[in-house]
Amino acid sequence: MDYRSIFEDAVDTLRQEKRYRVFADLERIAGRFPRAVYRDGSDNAREITIWCSNDYLGMGQHETTITAMQETAGRLGVGSGGTRNISGTNRPLVELERSLADLHRKEGALVFTSGFVSNEAAIATIARLLPDCMIFSDQLNHASMIQGVRQSGMQKAIFRHNDVAHLRDLLAACDRKRPKLICFESIYSMDGDVAPIKEICDLAEEFGAMTYIDEVHAVGMYGPRGGGIAERDGLMDRIDVVEGTLAKGFGVMGGYIAANKAIIDAVRSYAPEFIFTTSLPPALCAAARASIEHLKASSVERSMQQRQARLTKAILADAGLPVMQTDTHIVPLLVGDARQCKAASDMLLEKHNIYIQPINYPTVPKGTERLRITPTPLHTDEMIFELRHALVSVWTSLELPRERADAAITASKLTSGDLTLPTIGG
Amino acid sequence: MDYRSIFEDAVDTLRQEKRYRVFADLERIAGRFPRAVYRDGSDNAREITIWCSNDYLGMGQHETTITAMQETAGRLGVGSGGTRNISGTNRPLVELERSLADLHRKEGALVFTSGFVSNEAAIATIARLLPDCMIFSDQLNHASMIQGVRQSGMQKAIFRHNDVAHLRDLLAACDRKRPKLICFESIYSMDGDVAPIKEICDLAEEFGAMTYIDEVHAVGMYGPRGGGIAERDGLMDRIDVVEGTLAKGFGVMGGYIAANKAIIDAVRSYAPEFIFTTSLPPALCAAARASIEHLKASSVERSMQQRQARLTKAILADAGLPVMQTDTHIVPLLVGDARQCKAASDMLLEKHNIYIQPINYPTVPKGTERLRITPTPLHTDEMIFELRHALVSVWTSLELPRERADAAITASKLTSGDLTLPTIGG
Ligand SMILES: Cc1ncc(COP(=O)(O)O)c(C=O)c1O
Ligand SMILES: Cc1ncc(COP(=O)(O)O)c(C=O)c1O
Repeated sequence: MDYRSIFEDAVDTLRQEKRYRVFADLERIAGRFPRAVYRDGSDNAREITIWCSNDYLGMGQHETTITAMQETAGRLGVGSGGTRNISGTNRPLVELERSLADLHRKEGALVFTSGFVSNEAAIATIARLLPDCMIFSDQLNHASMIQGVRQSGMQKAIFRHNDVAHLRDLLAACDRKRPKLICFESIYSMDGDVAPIKEICDLAEEFGAMTYIDEVHAVGMYGPRGGGIAERDGLMDRIDVVEGTLAKGFGVMGGYIAANKAIIDAVRSYAPEFIFTTSLPPALCAAARASIEHLKASSVERSMQQRQARLTKAILADAGLPVMQTDTHIVPLLVGDARQCKAASDMLLEKHNIYIQPINYPTVPKGTERLRITPTPLHTDEMIFELRHALVSVWTSLELPRERADAAITASKLTSGDLTLPTIGG
Repeated sequence: MDYRSIFEDAVDTLRQEKRYRVFADLERIAGRFPRAVYRDGSDNAREITIWCSNDYLGMGQHETTITAMQETAGRLGVGSGGTRNISGTNRPLVELERSLADLHRKEGALVFTSGFVSNEAAIATIARLLPDCMIFSDQLNHASMIQGVRQSGMQKAIFRHNDVAHLRDLLAACDRKRPKLICFESIYSMDGDVAPIKEICDLAEEFGAMTYIDEVHAVGMYGPRGGGIAERDGLMDRIDVVEGTLAKGFGVMGGYIAANKAIIDAVRSYAPEFIFTTSLPPALCAAARASIEHLKASSVERSMQQRQARLTKAILADAGLPVMQTDTHIVPLLVGDARQCKAASDMLLEKHNIYIQPINYPTVPKGTERLRITPTPLHTDEMIFELRHALVSVWTSLELPRERADAAITASKLTSGDLTLPTIGG
């Protein structure tokens, strides 16, 4: 059997659909975030600015996290040495879980190797433990949540994105006596929109459902202590399970859930994705904990991120670029075509030393291909103006569509208060 | 609905079956492997010796790996900043994949966040891409491989553990024209036995099947360059996909596959577990690569590990302890009962400052509960004698069974050559 050609054909399909991905080879430079060294196909290196990092606050290069990792690696080594049960439960991991439980004001927390694994493991295990459970899942939920739902083998109902009326209909149609689990995200990362958390919690109460929220794109970044949108909106105690990542706002790697002790203990005891894998290295745990604790106490990174995001949206919209409207730190620029999206990204990198990955299907629906910009506290005002210049030039060269998203905030609508620089510790 | 009590009941079941796990809180001490600080329930700390680490060669505390992690964290920070596609492909990761492809003499390699994820993602994706694929899976395959098989949704046939005749029957019964994938491990970690790799490859050739081998418990430890059992036995080119971990022999964290370019590109392009998750931090990649390259060039760790494993087996068997016969570095001691296994482990820790986790169902079948001992190059002869003393005392106190595994090698059968200390670099 000619196996090789089967795999080659599968990849060719992607090439034909302009969905074949080439990964940019980057080397970030600690202390100079968001700058990085880019190496092209012939291994030539040059400096560029990253505008699509999910290290949203630059914590991956913060002095506290670097010191924590170095110091812990020096004291305890670079790996944990085993699964959680077989000698892999280390002190920094135990402390990290305490820090996370405290962040979300829950009885306990459980750390996984990634946010992806935490969703898959937690959703599948929770649903399997609830006899005849019905899962209600937002239509735009992340691949890792979909995987958890599928893995559970339980019946599911998909509700239209952020559509509370539709969710209500589905809940009402389900047998009152069946256990129910509502799975949704607080911030949807590709559109940057926010879920109606309060309304969903109200429905959960009315119909006796459990709530499971993915705050991956919000932890560290929203709420007075970085507990996420649920913290910002005073809704933490109405959420049964909150899931987050240590990789984005917190800048490291790993994932977790926080919940009451019974749920934590059950997932800990039953999830194969948790039980049968080597635990997170102590040095990663220490770095993540340093990041979390720093962001509990300091709001300057959050304020600066919000400021730079507002400024970026305003300046790009003012330049006639098709900024999609968001209430969050995420700034999508609509292109609407896979080939053009890739061309725009390539031209930004080649001509302007700016790196923004094209976001194509299946990450977003076909026809909504985009450049997804994530301003951080460390992108300066000057960099934002450079970005505008580069984008306008690319939009003109490639004759890309300029229809502006309806309700885009333009610079002229910003008040001066919107752009005041926050003070350190503020 | 009283969700909490459903989860509490689920955990109570485990308690009743004596399968409830309590994780020991350990803090390893770099440079003093296998020593660690243990903290009991009341947070009292004391020093103990770990005898069940999966940091099989102590590479997690090797100077090279620690320096690589510290240096890279200092230069590039503590996280990768994104998924592979969205700014998360970093230079040390690219170099790590080259190092792994070279280790296994394959065209390419692909790194995942863990060995668990690499098995799940690779098996599921490969099987899904082969139309109407039939998977042949060893009965004792690891949970992560089982998850990959299930995730694929493809038909499967389970062959009796390491039973080539049974595998042949199943292959012969399957339509010649269907694509076939044989999934197995080289070393089964709980019994320490080795698969008949050559015979399985012969069958694969005869019936036109692909071979997928998990060398998680062998990479770094077997073969002249640490390529695993397939390297040791000169069979690497007969394996289509080799899967390994960066967490055990290499002492860090992460997983991978190595294969031809077509397979690597297809898994890279189609596996959600690979696409939709933050990539491994550069500092981890650098530490893993340092470990791999060190072990390609140095065999002293491998020789010392083999020596200490042989010595441990011989000395424990001589003392009348029920050592299960193995050809590998894994030394299982049969207890055969969950409660007694836990009691033995507790007594070793409380009275003898020795940590060996009980291995109970579902990790091993009921009735085969055991203590699983993993001697490393850094366990001294003196520690082995201490271990014997402690085990004999525990076996006597608890009146544990002493039937010796049939063909156990006893100290008197060892030749002096077996115990010669290898020289550095040898
Ligand atoms: C909504 C959402 N959940 C979970 C994840 C997975 O988190 P991690 O990168 O830690 O695996 C991601 C992205 O990576 C995500 O966007
Ligand atoms: C055979 C086997 N495969 C895969 C894994 C998973 O590897 P990792 O710990 O890197 O997730 C393990 C154990 O952890 C294992 O024993």
